[in-house]
Amino acid sequence: MAENPRLDALMERFAQHDRTALARLITLVENRAPEVSAVMERIYSRTGNAQIVGITGPPGAGKSTLINRLIANYRAEGKQIAVLPIDPSSPFSGGAVLGDRVRMTDHFRDPGVYIRSLSTRGSHGGLSRAAREIVRVLDAFGHDLIIVETVGVGQTELSVMDLAHTTVVVTVPEGGDGIQAMKAGLNEIADIFVVNKADREGADRLKAELELSVHLRPPGGWDSPVLLTQAASGQGVDALVAAIAKHRAWLSEHRDPARESERRQREFTEVLTAELEELAARALGNGAAGNIVAQVREGRLNPYSAAHTMMAGIAKLLSDRHT
Amino acid sequence: MAENPRLDALMERFAQHDRTALARLITLVENRAPEVSAVMERIYSRTGNAQIVGITGPPGAGKSTLINRLIANYRAEGKQIAVLPIDPSSPFSGGAVLGDRVRMTDHFRDPGVYIRSLSTRGSHGGLSRAAREIVRVLDAFGHDLIIVETVGVGQTELSVMDLAHTTVVVTVPEGGDGIQAMKAGLNEIADIFVVNKADREGADRLKAELELSVHLRPPGGWDSPVLLTQAASGQGVDALVAAIAKHRAWLSEHRDPARESERRQREFTEVLTAELEELAARALGNGAAGNIVAQVREGRLNPYSAAHTMMAGIAKLLSDRHT
Repeated sequence: MAENPRLDALMERFAQHDRTALARLITLVENRAPEVSAVMERIYSRTGNAQIVGITGPPGAGKSTLINRLIANYRAEGKQIAVLPIDPSSPFSGGAVLGDRVRMTDHFRDPGVYIRSLSTRGSHGGLSRAAREIVRVLDAFGHDLIIVETVGVGQTELSVMDLAHTTVVVTVPEGGDGIQAMKAGLNEIADIFVVNKADREGADRLKAELELSVHLRPPGGWDSPVLLTQAASGQGVDALVAAIAKHRAWLSEHRDPARESERRQREFTEVLTAELEELAARALGNGAAGNIVAQVREGRLNPYSAAHTMMAGIAKLLSDRHT
Repeated sequence: MAENPRLDALMERFAQHDRTALARLITLVENRAPEVSAVMERIYSRTGNAQIVGITGPPGAGKSTLINRLIANYRAEGKQIAVLPIDPSSPFSGGAVLGDRVRMTDHFRDPGVYIRSLSTRGSHGGLSRAAREIVRVLDAFGHDLIIVETVGVGQTELSVMDLAHTTVVVTVPEGGDGIQAMKAGLNEIADIFVVNKADREGADRLKAELELSVHLRPPGGWDSPVLLTQAASGQGVDALVAAIAKHRAWLSEHRDPARESERRQREFTEVLTAELEELAARALGNGAAGNIVAQVREGRLNPYSAAHTMMAGIAKLLSDRHT
C-alpha cells in the first residue's frame, strides 16, 4: 500500500477539501476496493469531530422533509452538513415523490451540504461496514454534522444506528392508533422522539405513549424528549435542533469510557471480521462462499462443517500467496 | 481430525448416554480444546430435539428456587432436564445461600437431571459461543428440556438468550416500585414474564406495568403472558409450565423460516469468526493480540491499523504451517 502514487494524489486533494476527491473516496468504499483499508488507516486520525445524528422511522413519517428543514437550520448557522440516506425509497436515493426531490435541488448546489445515498444492495453486514466507513470519510473531510437516515428497525438499521451519537426516531400518528407506528427496538435506541405531522389526530396520545415508554426505562440515563413537529411548515424544527444540541452537551458531560472502549473494540472486531470474511470469500470464490452460506441458511450444511470448509479455503489462499 | 481414536472412544460413550462422557465433552468445549470443532461437526445432526428455555432476571428474584420447582415438575413427567446457569452468583455455580444448595442435592443425584454451571471468565464472545456449544452437546445427549439461566441484560446475556426458544424473564416487586426491576432490553426478549414473590406489595402493579409493555409491542406476535408466582411455596409454577408448553406449541404453529435462516447464518458467522479470531490470536500469541485489543480500546491504535497487524500475523502463521 505504501507505493500508490494515484492514491496519494487522491488523498492530497481530499485533504485540500476537494469534493470530487471526497466522492471518489466514497465510491472506493462502496465498491469495496482493495485500497479501502489503506484509506481508512490514513484518514482515521482526522476523524472524531463531527456529530453523527441518526434519523430513523417508518416510510411516510416525513423524515426527508424534516431533514430538509434541519439542513436549512444548520446552514443558517454556517455548519457543514452531510446526509447519508440508507434506504432505496428515500427521496435522496431516488425512490421519491417528485416534490421532495425538487425541494432538495437547492441543497445539492450548496457546497456546504453533501448528500450521498447508500444503496442496500450487497450483504447486510457489508452495508453497516460501508456506512461506518463513509461516515468516517465524511467526518475526516470536515463536516460538522452528519445525518444518517434509515427506515425501519432491522438488525442492519440498528447496527447502522450504533454509529450515531444521537438517534432521532420519527413517528407519526396514524388513523388515531399511534401504537402501530412503533416497532420493537426503536424505543430502546431513541435519544429523541419526534411525533411529526403533529396536526393529525392522535398526536397527543402518541406523545403520551412514547413518554410512558421513556418513563419505563431504567433511571439515571438521558431523559429522551418527545417533540411534536410539523416538518411541512417547519413548526417544531427549532426545538429539534435545540434537543440535538442538548443531547450532544449531555453526552460530553456524561462520557462513558467503558462504553467508548466497547464501541472501539466493536469497530475493530467488525473490521477484522470483514477482512477475514473477504479473505474467506476470495479463497473460495464468491460463488462458492455464497453457496455455502445458502446451504447453512437452508439447514442442509451444519455451521461447523461450513466453517471448516471456509478455513481450508483461507489456508490454501494464504499459502498460495506466500509460497 | 479423522484419526483420533481417543475422541472416537469418547464419542462412542457419549452416544451410549454415558454421563461421564458428557461431562468430558463439555469440559473440552469450556477449555476451547482443538477438538471442539470436530466434536460439534459430529454431534450436530443429533441436535434440534430439545426445547431450550432461557430464564433471566435480576439477582434475588428467586430464579434458582423457581428452576428447582420446574425441575421437579418436569421430572414428574419423566422428562430429561439439563440446567446451564451462566452466573457466578447462582446457587448452581457456587455463589449461593446454603439453603438453595442443599435443596439442589436431590436433583444432583437424579440421573434425569444434569446441572453444569458455566463461569463468566474469559472473553464475552467466547462465553456466548461456549454456551451455545454446550447447549448443543446437552441437546445431542438427549435432554428434552435445557434451561439456560442468566442474570441481567448485558450484550452477553442477550446473545446467550438468542439460543433459547422460550425466554422467561423473572421479576420481583421491590419496595413497591416495580419499574426499577425492569432493565432495558428485557422487555423485548420476554416470551413469558414471571412476577415472583407475588405475595409482596406491588406485585399487581408490576404485573399491570409489564402487561402494558407487552401491549406496546407491534401487533401480530406471541402475546407474552405475565404470571404471578411464589416459587418458595410452588404457587403458580404449574401455570408457568403450561405457558412454556403453550409457547412451544405456538412456535411450531408459527414457524418463521426467514428467522430460522437468519439464526443459522448467525451461528455460522459466529463459528467462523471465532475460528478466524482464534487463528489471529494464535498467530500473534495471545499476549500480543490482547495488547493490540487493549490499544484499540484505549483509542491509541486505530481499528484499521490493528486489523492490518492481525491479518499479517495470520498470513505468517498459515504460510509457516503450509511450507
